Amino acid sequence: MNLTDIQALDQQDPLAYKRDEFDLPPNCIYLDGNSLGALPTAVKPRVADLVTQQWGNSLITSWNSHNWIDLPVNIGEKIAPLIGAAPQQVICCDSISVNLFKVLCAALALNPGRTQVLSTQDNFPTDLYMVQGVTELLGSDKCQLKMVQETQITEHLNDSVAVLLLTQVNFRTGRLLDMKQLTQRAHDKGILVIWDLAHSAGAFPIELDSCEVDFAVGCGYKYLNGGPGAPAFLYVAKGHQSACVQPLLGWMGHSKPFDFAPLYQPAADIKRFLSGTPSVVAMSVLDAALDVWTDVNLVQVREKSIALAEVFMTLINAHDCLHTLQLVSPIAAEQRGSQLAYRHEQAFAICQALIDRGVIADFRAPDLIRFGLTPLYTSFEDIWHSVNHLLEVVNNKLFLEPRFNQILKVT
Amino acid sequence: MNLTDIQALDQQDPLAYKRDEFDLPPNCIYLDGNSLGALPTAVKPRVADLVTQQWGNSLITSWNSHNWIDLPVNIGEKIAPLIGAAPQQVICCDSISVNLFKVLCAALALNPGRTQVLSTQDNFPTDLYMVQGVTELLGSDKCQLKMVQETQITEHLNDSVAVLLLTQVNFRTGRLLDMKQLTQRAHDKGILVIWDLAHSAGAFPIELDSCEVDFAVGCGYKYLNGGPGAPAFLYVAKGHQSACVQPLLGWMGHSKPFDFAPLYQPAADIKRFLSGTPSVVAMSVLDAALDVWTDVNLVQVREKSIALAEVFMTLINAHDCLHTLQLVSPIAAEQRGSQLAYRHEQAFAICQALIDRGVIADFRAPDLIRFGLTPLYTSFEDIWHSVNHLLEVVNNKLFLEPRFNQILKVT
Repeated sequence: MNLTDIQALDQQDPLAYKRDEFDLPPNCIYLDGNSLGALPTAVKPRVADLVTQQWGNSLITSWNSHNWIDLPVNIGEKIAPLIGAAPQQVICCDSISVNLFKVLCAALALNPGRTQVLSTQDNFPTDLYMVQGVTELLGSDKCQLKMVQETQITEHLNDSVAVLLLTQVNFRTGRLLDMKQLTQRAHDKGILVIWDLAHSAGAFPIELDSCEVDFAVGCGYKYLNGGPGAPAFLYVAKGHQSACVQPLLGWMGHSKPFDFAPLYQPAADIKRFLSGTPSVVAMSVLDAALDVWTDVNLVQVREKSIALAEVFMTLINAHDCLHTLQLVSPIAAEQRGSQLAYRHEQAFAICQALIDRGVIADFRAPDLIRFGLTPLYTSFEDIWHSVNHLLEVVNNKLFLEPRFNQILKVT
Repeated sequence: MNLTDIQALDQQDPLAYKRDEFDLPPNCIYLDGNSLGALPTAVKPRVADLVTQQWGNSLITSWNSHNWIDLPVNIGEKIAPLIGAAPQQVICCDSISVNLFKVLCAALALNPGRTQVLSTQDNFPTDLYMVQGVTELLGSDKCQLKMVQETQITEHLNDSVAVLLLTQVNFRTGRLLDMKQLTQRAHDKGILVIWDLAHSAGAFPIELDSCEVDFAVGCGYKYLNGGPGAPAFLYVAKGHQSACVQPLLGWMGHSKPFDFAPLYQPAADIKRFLSGTPSVVAMSVLDAALDVWTDVNLVQVREKSIALAEVFMTLINAHDCLHTLQLVSPIAAEQRGSQLAYRHEQAFAICQALIDRGVIADFRAPDLIRFGLTPLYTSFEDIWHSVNHLLEVVNNKLFLEPRFNQILKVT
């Protein structure tokens, strides 16, 4: 496989034109869109208009005249088709952590008599912490976290489990769990299922409705490119909505929020999962970013993601000296999300050396390098050059330079 | 009192120069800064830099290089002096509703054996709803909301009350409660106190530390001018921090967030009140907005607020035909926040007619008009012209025009 082969792949890429809808820095190959998505060009005029015209000029009247009040619902409806949800089941609000608390409490209340929340040891920590927070609040007679290995989930599904809480794609390894099968098996045991879509939404097709998922949460700042710390979303299957109430009762979730009545009465629909006033600036950024998806076929996104990964792995495997990098992501495409993770004892320094050369990947302690694949703005040639940089760093042991030593990193 | 007198007040106003630090629309008098603060000019370059350079160009590395990770703490420290809090007690995150849930659960856990949360019937509804949410979650044997009139608070302080939850300034009437006295009386009965500063922070001096307040929450989008739905803040007195844990355990509140360990271990300090990843865009806007306060003396803000209100009331009282407007705010300045509310059976239509003439006040069902006074950008001449417009609307019964009829409004 040579550069000409690679360039041919880019020429045939049906998504290649999408790259122009992002502002990517010069001399940079960005392989960290699984952590923070790149900037869609449409965001800049939108945020300028939001600040200068909507806030600055129209001030408070914009809640109606610019429809700020409907942003949580309208953004939810933009996300819905990306995750296989029919209308009126997705809403945008708060952070993924806070939303997880809401659906966790709602799910536990829907499954009385059972107390166990089953999850994986290697789930993203916030998910596990939120269960621990519920336990601390309600007591271990109401909520108990049980953590198992990803390979052992099925055998732990039994009738003491109230809720199965899974992240579809492992944030470290990129392993993709089988949503349909696991949801079905959980339901067979009377267990409700919450899926965390942090590393899935915008990465590949998701079918919440057809998998009969009960609840889901997801974030706006990774593959959805909604900006750092973008508002999150949550999904509640239509059939559950009227039966469940979440505990973070804020005025925006009230059936008549502008009555300002002292007693809470939940909205009849998904809006009951809203709490307080959301950041209109943050929501508007995400709203603009989501317009990138209007003409995108997620099947093509998935196909390109797999092709990018195959090229990456093929190029790595072609160089003997890169065999010190151990792939921890599944080799089989159908078991993988849209990232590749490699283990190396010098992972941290290698990652810094790559960043120094303009290849942004990320490090996860103690020894992983993650390469995120974002088909809307990553080209096959990006992958080619990335592997060449990696080759130079590893082959010449550039990672031994003392300067490649100090940084923090955020999911 | 004539226009020359009014203009003399503006000429003597030590805060008059601050108006240039805001972008106010032409031909508009904005008396709704108690609902959504005006746009500080410093926000525009900051948000453009945040989006284009920090996010667009530096991407994920900005969490360190642009110090995104410290925004919650750094913004908290900017707010602290505005509310009379020594360092390390204030943090910026989430919405005021969500933060209220955190401190409410923390306060209840600090006062075991007691179950009652005492509040006022006329508190801002989200505050009351959050207590109802905790009751729904924990059961009424753990948390019960008791609502009383503002004038009856003291007589209901007894040893079955766990937490006194008060908003310092009533969102409808603008009545200001006595923080020092009520906190002291509650403490005398072993009650912990939470103050909601939504309509206080940035409106006048607040002394949380010297009043020995236990917890407080507040919002960034009113007198702090942080933009629509700006992130909120919370205060936890230093002495309580190590003893209390809030239940929304997110990864940012962990003592070692980048270890991504499966078991939660709270940060030793105020950071344990963080949950998930905050919106960096929203936080940056608020951060830029707060720089307006660097050279502001809140005593002067309070003096001007009172003077603006006195002028407003004096002008209203000078016109017989305006006597149909009934003041519901306290006449005594020391019992009032930074707004005036008037009752009129045509309040809604009067409010619309004023907006039509470029005077932005707001309506609260069923019959109140609120005039917010924001000394940083409201002049005495603004008040003069506002009352003249009000006079024309009421005197000529312009509010009877059918077009002044349809709108929603947000706190």
